Amino acid sequence: MPVCNVSLQVIPLVDQKEVYPLVDQVIDYIASTGVKYSVGPMETTMEGDLEELLSIVKKVQALCTTAGADRVLSVVKIDYSTRGVTIDEKMGKYKI
Amino acid sequence: MPVCNVSLQVIPLVDQKEVYPLVDQVIDYIASTGVKYSVGPMETTMEGDLEELLSIVKKVQALCTTAGADRVLSVVKIDYSTRGVTIDEKMGKYKI
Amino acid sequence: MPVCNVSLQVIPLVDQKEVYPLVDQVIDYIASTGVKYSVGPMETTMEGDLEELLSIVKKVQALCTTAGADRVLSVVKIDYSTRGVTIDEKMGKYKI
Amino acid sequence: MPVCNVSLQVIPLVDQKEVYPLVDQVIDYIASTGVKYSVGPMETTMEGDLEELLSIVKKVQALCTTAGADRVLSVVKIDYSTRGVTIDEKMGKYKI
Repeated sequence: MPVCNVSLQVIPLVDQKEVYPLVDQVIDYIASTGVKYSVGPMETTMEGDLEELLSIVKKVQALCTTAGADRVLSVVKIDYSTRGVTIDEKMGKYKI
Repeated sequence: MPVCNVSLQVIPLVDQKEVYPLVDQVIDYIASTGVKYSVGPMETTMEGDLEELLSIVKKVQALCTTAGADRVLSVVKIDYSTRGVTIDEKMGKYKI
Repeated sequence: MPVCNVSLQVIPLVDQKEVYPLVDQVIDYIASTGVKYSVGPMETTMEGDLEELLSIVKKVQALCTTAGADRVLSVVKIDYSTRGVTIDEKMGKYKI
Repeated sequence: MPVCNVSLQVIPLVDQKEVYPLVDQVIDYIASTGVKYSVGPMETTMEGDLEELLSIVKKVQALCTTAGADRVLSVVKIDYSTRGVTIDEKMGKYKI
């Protein structure tokens, strides 16, 4: 299967002051999986096999509710092509 | 596992005139899975088990490329809660 | 200017029990503007002039903070074409 | 008015090979406006006054159709708070 890009924005319905710590937990978890990822101000973009990335998205839901969020709204974007899609082909020229 | 809501907007990079027929194929596929769903002008919302719904999202990617799209951009929204989330609790009052 | 479609999902960071009442206020406001709209389980889609619809999106932010949300996350989708885009061309076959 | 964050993903329905050049045009335009922005693999996030940022989102639609796209799908996320929202408060710890 080709690599693809999956971005994830997590919006847990918790007190304002708990939002960033919970998002940090999500990013720590993504980092722990070993997939390539890039953190942005509104979402984290991952690169890899679609099935693996969707499995991470699924586990993040349980991570958030276990951490105290009654409810979680997520926005997931998928960029998929049979030839593969990489973060570098999109970001190369915008990196310093 | 509680039921949740997952909405899917599929944007295949194909000729304008092929967009709606391809989106129709996606909706036909969702209907064929037997999950509860609601078609809207920008996305289709499904209700069920998160793992099953994400599996449908995954299969839709291959469906689109098999149908001729070189590339597919998707927007997926997840509404997840330990107590469950239903389409009816959100839409009840807005139906005739 | 051609008509276009703009969908809006509003996620106010408030207590769970206050989310639906606040979303209802947003939909009431959209209804009060007179634009054509369609309520879905995850977003409300509006049809009209892009500038007018983005002005509604802007006013909804202040509506939410005035109603008590410290913070609001919104997801807005725009479907824009020089030939115009209508809700009916997309939904016609899926209505009963 | 407080500063807020608005992210923009533009998906023009053009030939695959024309997508990146058109997205580059959009980013060039955003850069030319003078607002603070951060380019990511799936979206560009801007920081500033909500009205100004939505005006940029609006102009991007015309830019894409003028550049040859018959149709443009966009995903816009807004992060709004009366106390203001900045890219730095979210990205600080993730920068090298």
